[in-house]
Amino acid sequence: MTSAHHTVNDDVAETRKDRFERGMEVLGRVDGEGGRRVVDSLADISPELGHQVVAWAFGDIYDRPGLAPRDRQLVTLGMLTALGGCEPQLDVHINAALNVGLGTEEIVEALLHSAVYCGIPKALNATFVAKKVFAERGQLPDSDRPGPAQPGPAH
Amino acid sequence: MTSAHHTVNDDVAETRKDRFERGMEVLGRVDGEGGRRVVDSLADISPELGHQVVAWAFGDIYDRPGLAPRDRQLVTLGMLTALGGCEPQLDVHINAALNVGLGTEEIVEALLHSAVYCGIPKALNATFVAKKVFAERGQLPDSDRPGPAQPGPAH
Amino acid sequence: MTSAHHTVNDDVAETRKDRFERGMEVLGRVDGEGGRRVVDSLADISPELGHQVVAWAFGDIYDRPGLAPRDRQLVTLGMLTALGGCEPQLDVHINAALNVGLGTEEIVEALLHSAVYCGIPKALNATFVAKKVFAERGQLPDSDRPGPAQPGPAH
Amino acid sequence: MTSAHHTVNDDVAETRKDRFERGMEVLGRVDGEGGRRVVDSLADISPELGHQVVAWAFGDIYDRPGLAPRDRQLVTLGMLTALGGCEPQLDVHINAALNVGLGTEEIVEALLHSAVYCGIPKALNATFVAKKVFAERGQLPDSDRPGPAQPGPAH
Amino acid sequence: MTSAHHTVNDDVAETRKDRFERGMEVLGRVDGEGGRRVVDSLADISPELGHQVVAWAFGDIYDRPGLAPRDRQLVTLGMLTALGGCEPQLDVHINAALNVGLGTEEIVEALLHSAVYCGIPKALNATFVAKKVFAERGQLPDSDRPGPAQPGPAH
Amino acid sequence: MTSAHHTVNDDVAETRKDRFERGMEVLGRVDGEGGRRVVDSLADISPELGHQVVAWAFGDIYDRPGLAPRDRQLVTLGMLTALGGCEPQLDVHINAALNVGLGTEEIVEALLHSAVYCGIPKALNATFVAKKVFAERGQLPDSDRPGPAQPGPAH
Repeated sequence: MTSAHHTVNDDVAETRKDRFERGMEVLGRVDGEGGRRVVDSLADISPELGHQVVAWAFGDIYDRPGLAPRDRQLVTLGMLTALGGCEPQLDVHINAALNVGLGTEEIVEALLHSAVYCGIPKALNATFVAKKVFAERGQLPDSDRPGPAQPGPAH
Repeated sequence: MTSAHHTVNDDVAETRKDRFERGMEVLGRVDGEGGRRVVDSLADISPELGHQVVAWAFGDIYDRPGLAPRDRQLVTLGMLTALGGCEPQLDVHINAALNVGLGTEEIVEALLHSAVYCGIPKALNATFVAKKVFAERGQLPDSDRPGPAQPGPAH
Repeated sequence: MTSAHHTVNDDVAETRKDRFERGMEVLGRVDGEGGRRVVDSLADISPELGHQVVAWAFGDIYDRPGLAPRDRQLVTLGMLTALGGCEPQLDVHINAALNVGLGTEEIVEALLHSAVYCGIPKALNATFVAKKVFAERGQLPDSDRPGPAQPGPAH
Repeated sequence: MTSAHHTVNDDVAETRKDRFERGMEVLGRVDGEGGRRVVDSLADISPELGHQVVAWAFGDIYDRPGLAPRDRQLVTLGMLTALGGCEPQLDVHINAALNVGLGTEEIVEALLHSAVYCGIPKALNATFVAKKVFAERGQLPDSDRPGPAQPGPAH
Repeated sequence: MTSAHHTVNDDVAETRKDRFERGMEVLGRVDGEGGRRVVDSLADISPELGHQVVAWAFGDIYDRPGLAPRDRQLVTLGMLTALGGCEPQLDVHINAALNVGLGTEEIVEALLHSAVYCGIPKALNATFVAKKVFAERGQLPDSDRPGPAQPGPAH
Repeated sequence: MTSAHHTVNDDVAETRKDRFERGMEVLGRVDGEGGRRVVDSLADISPELGHQVVAWAFGDIYDRPGLAPRDRQLVTLGMLTALGGCEPQLDVHINAALNVGLGTEEIVEALLHSAVYCGIPKALNATFVAKKVFAERGQLPDSDRPGPAQPGPAH
């Protein structure tokens, strides 16, 4: 196990602006438009929270080695589902999960799996966010198709 | 204490379809239209979650003896209130509670009781869902009537 | 639906001491020794929290009509299970549930039911508190007995 | 440390109506219109919950000495942010915080601080409620102004 | 996306015992001893909860295709960290994560990542469970070794 | 409202080591021994989490102007009480609260206040941590003294 950072080491000096710019690069790659909109919407109320989301969460944490981007999104989907009340963040991160290479089936399966640990209500709330995001991206499976994707007795 | 199931025993074989159908019968009796709408809305995104809600939650758990249907709804209202962020499920289950024989007064009193354990905010959130459900069913007490149903000093 | 209290009405004057004494009578009836120990252990750190537990939670809320004592305990078990981290309170209230007439089978079944809404981990945590309380009261079913109380395949 | 109440002592008799009226006076001072609207909206569904919010939360607890009103709002903002799903209550209490003397900068800073303990999603949810409340009251900083209030690289 | 199960289809009949046995096989593979101990400890209090953990959680959900075993553990670690108060389950599932191929560095990194979404306290609580599990398995990195694994300034 | 930092501005370059050292200075001032012990205990399992606690939470966030140290602890006590399961962190931060100038009465009162928002169980859990911390520091009020500090009827 190593905590050595692949881009920053303990003796490299960075300004706040450097860390912010590094974070914006990671944020753009992971969350795309959704992440930028969140930061923009903080500009008039808490620019420092916007700065920390970018410079700390994305610049310092997301950018670390040791856990692949798709794995970070899997863990994140689990946490946001469990916390409850984080539907806006699930929207951003279900998009992010698709952006970094998780498939729709993996996401749906992860949210089904969440029923075991978080209970049915939180699994439902998260799944309905996935339905909205997949529909917006044209990635919702066609519910009219025949075959195994239909519920129980219709199989 | 016995865990023996009243309809299924360990040596009776059931298909997924059998369990689903058994669950749909229980779901219809308890949650009525609200429950079916949830399952339908999962058809295009996570039919398996719909299957599990029906076959597992309703077919396997709700249908067990040992706790009366009205008691299951009481416990459920307590859990959904405590979890927070489960207003859509509270809507379904306040309807279910009325369907299986809890009275409006008992529901309101259970949500008042929740203030002791979950705090005032969650008690308020759940009570406002009850207000919506009762109004939709024409079971909201008339706030204009004279007498004891008005708040504090107006009593 | 009526909010009229059966013992106090809006025009009856009570002192803090009256409300506390009324609450202690209810607390003794519901929680027994466990409740009194909690209040005693607050005496040197937050006597006012002790007062509010007694005078408000038990004197004002528990003592209201509209929900039977056993029903209040059912809702309470649901809430404490869902909140998480409330094992000491579950201990008191599983005792209370038995004191006011819930059976061990009903309690175990309510906690099984909680798996649907809160997920397996919280259902497990609460069930292990029930195991401890039942054992202390000599009400734990004998796991060595033959027959239906054993898990799955051993049934 | 003393739990002696500055307005009520153990031997002073009060009616429910007295406690309610005392609470309404405190509620009006702290929460203003927002608090009264919550109590009014409970009149037809749970007048007793309305009574308890006023008589207990405001009459008994808020009115105690030992913690200044602004400090009570600081703690309250922390709790509502951490609980999650309490956006309607955050709206009332961000207004209350401004009413009892907290500045917009202190509120924004407290919500930034919450990121450390509650994580970024809950800090964001609470901050966006603050943005709405500040805008409604004309207290939102002008995001177009030049200088240090803009996010990271735009500083 | 398909919900077709790889081992069970809708028309294959299974007894409760079949589902339990299938679940025990999966449970043994994923959780090993820790999982079996949990099921055993339920035998005298809630054998049905034990049955559901095995037959439903492991037999029905864990065994599905669509999400790799290591990915299920990643999501699970995120959920258990976010829920809070689930340290016993984190113990079982950090062991499970190692059993199904996650490395210690990935687990530590996932828990560091959780600080962003759940806040520092829950990240700490989960990380200290990992420390205990790694130590029990002899997989704790040597804190005395020189180099990058030491905190901040010592790097 | 300004987000300008009083010690770091956007164009001042800092190394990770600089930020860590700044954070350690703040951590020592606020949390004292308790905080340092947490960081030390992370050295062998997640030195990077230790680094982030110090460099980010204390170096970047705690050290900002706009909210006084005692106010940060008040908000923190509210959050930790509401989250639940954070007793180890409450221990550190009740100590911190005393270190930065909050009085025992204010802390006890804040935790009583939390009953309104988080419910009685979480208020009790936090209050019992305060009892332990005050006792360790010799700051627990003498429960044997006569007078107003005793519960209800004994007043």
